[in-house]
Amino acid sequence: VVCAHASPAGHCPPGLDSFSHATADVAERVLTSRAWRVARRDLNAERFDPVQPTGEAQNTTSRDDLVERHCAELAAADLIGVFHPNCWGQPPAILKGWIERVFRLDTAYSYAQGVGFESVPVGLLKARRALVFNTSDTTAACEAEVFGDPLDTLWRRYVFGLCGVSDVSRRCYGPVAGSAAEQRHAWLLEVEAIVNAAALTPR
Amino acid sequence: VVCAHASPAGHCPPGLDSFSHATADVAERVLTSRAWRVARRDLNAERFDPVQPTGEAQNTTSRDDLVERHCAELAAADLIGVFHPNCWGQPPAILKGWIERVFRLDTAYSYAQGVGFESVPVGLLKARRALVFNTSDTTAACEAEVFGDPLDTLWRRYVFGLCGVSDVSRRCYGPVAGSAAEQRHAWLLEVEAIVNAAALTPR
Repeated sequence: VVCAHASPAGHCPPGLDSFSHATADVAERVLTSRAWRVARRDLNAERFDPVQPTGEAQNTTSRDDLVERHCAELAAADLIGVFHPNCWGQPPAILKGWIERVFRLDTAYSYAQGVGFESVPVGLLKARRALVFNTSDTTAACEAEVFGDPLDTLWRRYVFGLCGVSDVSRRCYGPVAGSAAEQRHAWLLEVEAIVNAAALTPR
Repeated sequence: VVCAHASPAGHCPPGLDSFSHATADVAERVLTSRAWRVARRDLNAERFDPVQPTGEAQNTTSRDDLVERHCAELAAADLIGVFHPNCWGQPPAILKGWIERVFRLDTAYSYAQGVGFESVPVGLLKARRALVFNTSDTTAACEAEVFGDPLDTLWRRYVFGLCGVSDVSRRCYGPVAGSAAEQRHAWLLEVEAIVNAAALTPR
């Protein structure tokens, strides 16, 4: 399993970030208890650089060893988990840079021979399943009705859809601001149940 | 006018990035010729750091002078332009970090007294109008029909919508890969026409 989590730069309302970390903690605990090997990556803690040097653009390798390790983990993973706050309807910048550098050509997707970049790529990832856990200060209903829930489209249809990961479970918990301890506990129980079910399915 | 443009990290198909720069060049030329003062920002060239130090999270000021200059420019702008390739249905990471650090609390939006972060913020920007120019290797129709065009939602409804910029014109040109010189010229003429019309409206 690859588990990546990240916080936004700048203003993040109190609780949103730490509750996102709590969802990653639960997932790691459940997977480890089920004897999965977990590569947990806190992008902020490891100071992942979301901006690739210009000279590396279009390359399928990086001079940054950390990026190479991430790519190897991603390619080998049976299950992928991402954990982050909803930040302007998008992942935090550091996680967006992780997508750009790690879900790269010839690692996560490719093009059939003889077709150009304007054609639909072929997914290369081994994992068939991904779990996305978001935290938010809007409700899931508001996110879906008012904004059309772009995060769902971004993860399910773009990133995982184009890389061959067809089974994506996504949950968004919120509003976290002002939520009761009992409510947060209930959310974490749901994370536990979802990860536990995923851990039981064949790899 | 604030004009920010940026390229994705990692793999960017040939032409997408340079054509995005070409759209920014046209906009700058038109606006300057109409006697607008333009603050053009090439985020990659100025090595904008998309990841804010953790200690600055939730702050309304930054110790990074470049961020402060961006915030002052954004607050003073009558018109905002952004130019970037479509990168997984999202802006490049460096531009996402620009949103996180520059469209910050008390610069771009705020909350009414006595309400929490779970409520809808109040937009603070002076600009009422924004122009978004994207380049892509899908067609606009594919982007809209297959993916629901999340970039449109992200800019129009989240970023500008929540910050008080109600009038957003957005165009996405593509596929750039394999496009004829004549086609790219026609796209740039449209950029010119759109920016010219915006430059003529009262500030």
